[in-house]
Amino acid sequence: MIEADYVTTDPDVLAAYSSDQAGFVRAGRPVALARPRETADVVRVLEYAHEHRIPVVPQGARTGMSGGATAVDGAILLSLERMDRILDIDEVDHTATVQPGVVNAVLSKAVAEKGLFYPPDPGSWESSTIGGNVATNAGGLCCVKYGVTSDFVRHLEVVLADGRVLRTGRRTAKGVAGYDLVRLITGSEGTLGVVTEVTVALRPAAEKPLTALAFFHTSAAACRAVTAYLGTGRRPSVLEFMDKATVDAVSAYRDLGFPDDVGAVLIAQSDRGPAAPDDLEAFAVAARECEAMEVFVASDQAEADLLIEARRLVGVALGRLGDQLVDDVCVPRSRLAELIEGIAEIGGEHGVAVPCCGHAGDGNLHPTVVFDAGDPESVRRGQAAFDAIMALGLRLGGTITGEHGVGTLKRAWLETELGEVGLSVHQAVKRAFDPHGILNPGKVIHGKPS
Amino acid sequence: MIEADYVTTDPDVLAAYSSDQAGFVRAGRPVALARPRETADVVRVLEYAHEHRIPVVPQGARTGMSGGATAVDGAILLSLERMDRILDIDEVDHTATVQPGVVNAVLSKAVAEKGLFYPPDPGSWESSTIGGNVATNAGGLCCVKYGVTSDFVRHLEVVLADGRVLRTGRRTAKGVAGYDLVRLITGSEGTLGVVTEVTVALRPAAEKPLTALAFFHTSAAACRAVTAYLGTGRRPSVLEFMDKATVDAVSAYRDLGFPDDVGAVLIAQSDRGPAAPDDLEAFAVAARECEAMEVFVASDQAEADLLIEARRLVGVALGRLGDQLVDDVCVPRSRLAELIEGIAEIGGEHGVAVPCCGHAGDGNLHPTVVFDAGDPESVRRGQAAFDAIMALGLRLGGTITGEHGVGTLKRAWLETELGEVGLSVHQAVKRAFDPHGILNPGKVIHGKPS
Repeated sequence: MIEADYVTTDPDVLAAYSSDQAGFVRAGRPVALARPRETADVVRVLEYAHEHRIPVVPQGARTGMSGGATAVDGAILLSLERMDRILDIDEVDHTATVQPGVVNAVLSKAVAEKGLFYPPDPGSWESSTIGGNVATNAGGLCCVKYGVTSDFVRHLEVVLADGRVLRTGRRTAKGVAGYDLVRLITGSEGTLGVVTEVTVALRPAAEKPLTALAFFHTSAAACRAVTAYLGTGRRPSVLEFMDKATVDAVSAYRDLGFPDDVGAVLIAQSDRGPAAPDDLEAFAVAARECEAMEVFVASDQAEADLLIEARRLVGVALGRLGDQLVDDVCVPRSRLAELIEGIAEIGGEHGVAVPCCGHAGDGNLHPTVVFDAGDPESVRRGQAAFDAIMALGLRLGGTITGEHGVGTLKRAWLETELGEVGLSVHQAVKRAFDPHGILNPGKVIHGKPS
Repeated sequence: MIEADYVTTDPDVLAAYSSDQAGFVRAGRPVALARPRETADVVRVLEYAHEHRIPVVPQGARTGMSGGATAVDGAILLSLERMDRILDIDEVDHTATVQPGVVNAVLSKAVAEKGLFYPPDPGSWESSTIGGNVATNAGGLCCVKYGVTSDFVRHLEVVLADGRVLRTGRRTAKGVAGYDLVRLITGSEGTLGVVTEVTVALRPAAEKPLTALAFFHTSAAACRAVTAYLGTGRRPSVLEFMDKATVDAVSAYRDLGFPDDVGAVLIAQSDRGPAAPDDLEAFAVAARECEAMEVFVASDQAEADLLIEARRLVGVALGRLGDQLVDDVCVPRSRLAELIEGIAEIGGEHGVAVPCCGHAGDGNLHPTVVFDAGDPESVRRGQAAFDAIMALGLRLGGTITGEHGVGTLKRAWLETELGEVGLSVHQAVKRAFDPHGILNPGKVIHGKPS
């Protein structure tokens, strides 16, 4: 193994670094963990791995939900967590350049101090890293207005499979010089190269958001309200959905004074400052037209914080129900009601609870399959429900993952989504970047060298 | 050659289809022109070309500025102009699906009738096709607020080099299933595949824009105003720059009553309806802080149309100066003043006029090298100035093309911008898609099969 102070083979440490947050995913047994501080160290790891044909598994904070950072047998785990310096924040060009181990929240706060704003806000933002966000093309609540991570990535430094350093992209607002390798690498989950430096676009700070919340009798009515609201041309900065099971779980965890017979909740935010009350009034009108039971529009920041609280509590409230697999499907917005209804049916058929919440404005839902990891029959039923949800998403013209990525968890389903030609092109691209298949092998696609 | 009613070998027709709008680019001699009506026809052309190793040059409306659609020797020209059907406009999901030959303006008008908006608006929008816009990842005036073509492309049908049909992307607002082949193919100028169907995202219609115009003594002052204005967080829907030479050319073509001593002009638009006057007032404040000579803010639509007229006349006004090469460089916004100043110096050194205008909000400038195509010495000086501008753009941290693409015109400069590793990865990607090098060979990169 490479002799370097940033490499360890301590079995306890390796075990601690072997998994991310994905359910249903078995970790392999790695041979070493490298925690480099500089690009040159990453180059050395890749050169060594290339020479000896050793698999390399790049890792950020291991908060991913699909097994993208999970160890494979015989691999060097390559954690970028120590490469955590913010290299530059440019207040004129509105860009930041960072090492991959910078935590999203650290960057967000640093740019906020300069009156700037880094929008991508995955649920893991307080612990996940920019490198991990780039690897998975992370989304979040703000996407409905601002877009996902890849909409903000301008330039990357990437160590290739053989240790060469690729610098690709641009420092400019626009550019069409050559193929868009930045977009190709963003979201490729460490299978095409190891990102060692990222330049992201920033925006001037938005105003503090105001919030509105609407109760509906049914999910179908809530979905109609989403379409009606977005049809007005307003761009909410958040537009979230929670189904009855999710609302019930939150209410069981903390009494927020919600009515008993709530069938679904929508939460909208606007960060347009003086225009925010208008935006939220338009939301209220759309909700009432779609037979909302009640609509609350915050008139100040304290009320706004209270109304978004229900959404913030979802993770911890669902966590108390049992073991869980947080899924991630995205459908055309017009099919959202069918997706929600279908998921409820799937839960019933397989005898598992599947509370649903998510980013309604994007048609991106997170059904959470609740199961008992200690009961093989419950695990089996959970897995069957998970598969049925993937199939349903595809049947509705959707995708198997809106923002969590493929990893190993959804690799088989990706092949279904891509089809034969799509898979073959993916394999050709993978071979072009990684002819010996050492970069995060078995993630996203099988990627066997031809 | 393929026997089909959509194929011709008539030399006059071939000659008429052999060039796009690029200056300094010599067209090769094609062997045939195919104008298919359906994807199946495109498959047949590619299968034939694959079998016989014949180069294929895909073409839209041939309005490109870099030679991407220019004939190469021995090639089949593959014009998609007859595949011009709008297949679907979805008023709930806000998407449109079109064949590649649909003209941008035709799509824009069709979606406008349904209260929707397709923002990408290249200068050629009244004649260029969506397929061509995708191939070049076209920009336009609206980019400063809405982004470029690739920000709107969701799903593509692509005929690959061997005639297989790839369907890639998604119908959803978000999605991270597999590699982003849509972004890889968008902007690849027909070197990776032939796009035969495009699904684009739409937005609800924007309000009619209002316009403001500011005169400055110097370009430097105008550039400071751009930074000051965008620093406020306002998102103008247009923010255009014109230098003195451009203003003079426009004034010579039509007297718009501009003062004689104008050194630079900025034109801003806002399409935020009731918020537009506020946006433009912020522009006026920023301009005055930066020593604008005069600022005019339109108070109604008629005045707004009058103020943007100057920008609309640039093309025809510059066209009267002589032969021209419209260049396209993009730099970080903080370097815009240096770029403009440097271009003026280059014009002086090489004894050619190089009026500059462009998308100031994006740092994307179009210096127009004016020369006499009938005078070899003038051509030589024009080319030298063109090269010097590319070098200057790169020196300022910019890119050799913000929105016009590489084609053959900038291929050598692309190699400089990409560097050795970047070029090698480009070649590997090209080989993965087109192992025999039949797709638009010699465009973007040399792309020799290894």
